Amino acid sequence: MKPVLTVGSVAFDSIEAPAGQVSRIVGGAATYFSLAASFFTDVRLVAVVGEDFSSGQLEFFQNRRVDLTGLQRVPGESFRWKGKYNSDLSARETIYTKLNVFEEFSPQIPSPFRDTPYVFLANIHPALQLQVLEQVVDPQFVALDTMNYWIQGNLEELKQVLAKVDAIIINDEEARDLTGQSSLVKAANLIRDLGPKRVIIKRGEHGVLMSHDGDFFAVPGFPLDVVSDPTGAGDTFAGGFVGYLAASDQVTEKTFSEAVIAGSVMASFAVEDFGIDRLLQLTDASIRDRFKAFYKLTHFDPPV
Amino acid sequence: MKPVLTVGSVAFDSIEAPAGQVSRIVGGAATYFSLAASFFTDVRLVAVVGEDFSSGQLEFFQNRRVDLTGLQRVPGESFRWKGKYNSDLSARETIYTKLNVFEEFSPQIPSPFRDTPYVFLANIHPALQLQVLEQVVDPQFVALDTMNYWIQGNLEELKQVLAKVDAIIINDEEARDLTGQSSLVKAANLIRDLGPKRVIIKRGEHGVLMSHDGDFFAVPGFPLDVVSDPTGAGDTFAGGFVGYLAASDQVTEKTFSEAVIAGSVMASFAVEDFGIDRLLQLTDASIRDRFKAFYKLTHFDPPV
Repeated sequence: MKPVLTVGSVAFDSIEAPAGQVSRIVGGAATYFSLAASFFTDVRLVAVVGEDFSSGQLEFFQNRRVDLTGLQRVPGESFRWKGKYNSDLSARETIYTKLNVFEEFSPQIPSPFRDTPYVFLANIHPALQLQVLEQVVDPQFVALDTMNYWIQGNLEELKQVLAKVDAIIINDEEARDLTGQSSLVKAANLIRDLGPKRVIIKRGEHGVLMSHDGDFFAVPGFPLDVVSDPTGAGDTFAGGFVGYLAASDQVTEKTFSEAVIAGSVMASFAVEDFGIDRLLQLTDASIRDRFKAFYKLTHFDPPV
Repeated sequence: MKPVLTVGSVAFDSIEAPAGQVSRIVGGAATYFSLAASFFTDVRLVAVVGEDFSSGQLEFFQNRRVDLTGLQRVPGESFRWKGKYNSDLSARETIYTKLNVFEEFSPQIPSPFRDTPYVFLANIHPALQLQVLEQVVDPQFVALDTMNYWIQGNLEELKQVLAKVDAIIINDEEARDLTGQSSLVKAANLIRDLGPKRVIIKRGEHGVLMSHDGDFFAVPGFPLDVVSDPTGAGDTFAGGFVGYLAASDQVTEKTFSEAVIAGSVMASFAVEDFGIDRLLQLTDASIRDRFKAFYKLTHFDPPV
């Protein structure tokens, strides 16, 4: 079992959805990632929060195996985001994004973290992602997430990071935006030309498609009775995915496929309640049960 | 191995898509269904065409195991449809639908066909679907397709048929339209309350979701380099699905899951070229290979 390092946002989210609304709950890409990954392995979190984050609000991390040595606390307010989902959760509108202390964030990787073998660069400015990569020493596996904002505004820097990572974990819209291709197969091929040998495309309720060397692995979305809040599902997927890889410490096709399932399992839980609430209640047994449910959902015998 | 009976449209289609356009090619739900099913078992086709269909245009059926005894040829023009796809094939517009001889279609099931154990009611007026069910004797498995037009205009008759069938094979939009539920899980549950114990929801490029007794089986769409023409993909899926079931003549969960794959295999081929062109070139070996490719695409080991 190897540890995972992640760098990204820890934030306060406010969310409006058909199932209800919440204000100023703990969110942020690195939060969802770390929490999900912590069910599989030790997590080293590098992020910044303001003085408005009480130590009590981060206690849930300490109850899990998340090392907060790299969490800077600085004067000012934490990153805040507010979003509103439409009636069938197929789209969301950002009401506001207040970077606050995140605006001046300069990721400093504590020395003991620099040799972490599994690294996830959550969705932050590609220049900061590069800055992280300059500080880590010879990682075994690096994955990154990004978003349309950087694709449109900082493509050159993004390409520099892409050339240095093993995998990219993005959603379908971002894959299309990055390549101008509506076909995800063509998009994945073009993205692999930019550097990452492995492209993992998150398709929301439609599951995940992983491309590697022209081969694909795909899993459908888990059929859920209730979806309350899709916020953080993608980062939760990434946490399960990278966490599972690091826990098994094998980068074989078999492990990568299982990691896609592990990520899908965690994301399928995350959306059942608002924010991180469902993740906080998870047990290893419930994770194993849903992994089995994914197997039952998709398994068929090979042709003779 | 048992035969399959299908009742539906045989038509002339004109199609505009980014990959090209074609005029007056052979189409229709029963055409795609029969051709796909004929790779697995004997097919009995009941439909109507006008005098504009030359016998040469139906020759491909006779080269396969499709019995045309039930194909009426009547004075007038055949059913014609023209559609236009948008740039990424995510939507299509119907340019025209000319029912022609189909307007007066009254399905007559030839006596030797009446005890066919596997029956597929393609997308026609629910009153005609009922008329077919009155003529068949004790079928083992009956599935139907329908469309928004009948859901909106003939719901009561549709509900009468639904109460009499084992399975419904529809697309996601139709499932939502029929139930007013955006969640496919809830929609599937509500549809099962209407009669069919098994609900198979086609999600286009996102694959297929099958619901039975509160359990689900799902397969993602096959990642294709080239998609030329999605026309008939749903009926091709149904042909592979029901054809596979009839060929194995077992209605077990294992067979149903494999039938979903068989249908997905056939549909994944159909969209690679216009109309039925790709289906006409298929071999049993290529079907088996793609079945294996689906296995490779989705297989992972169960957790220990």
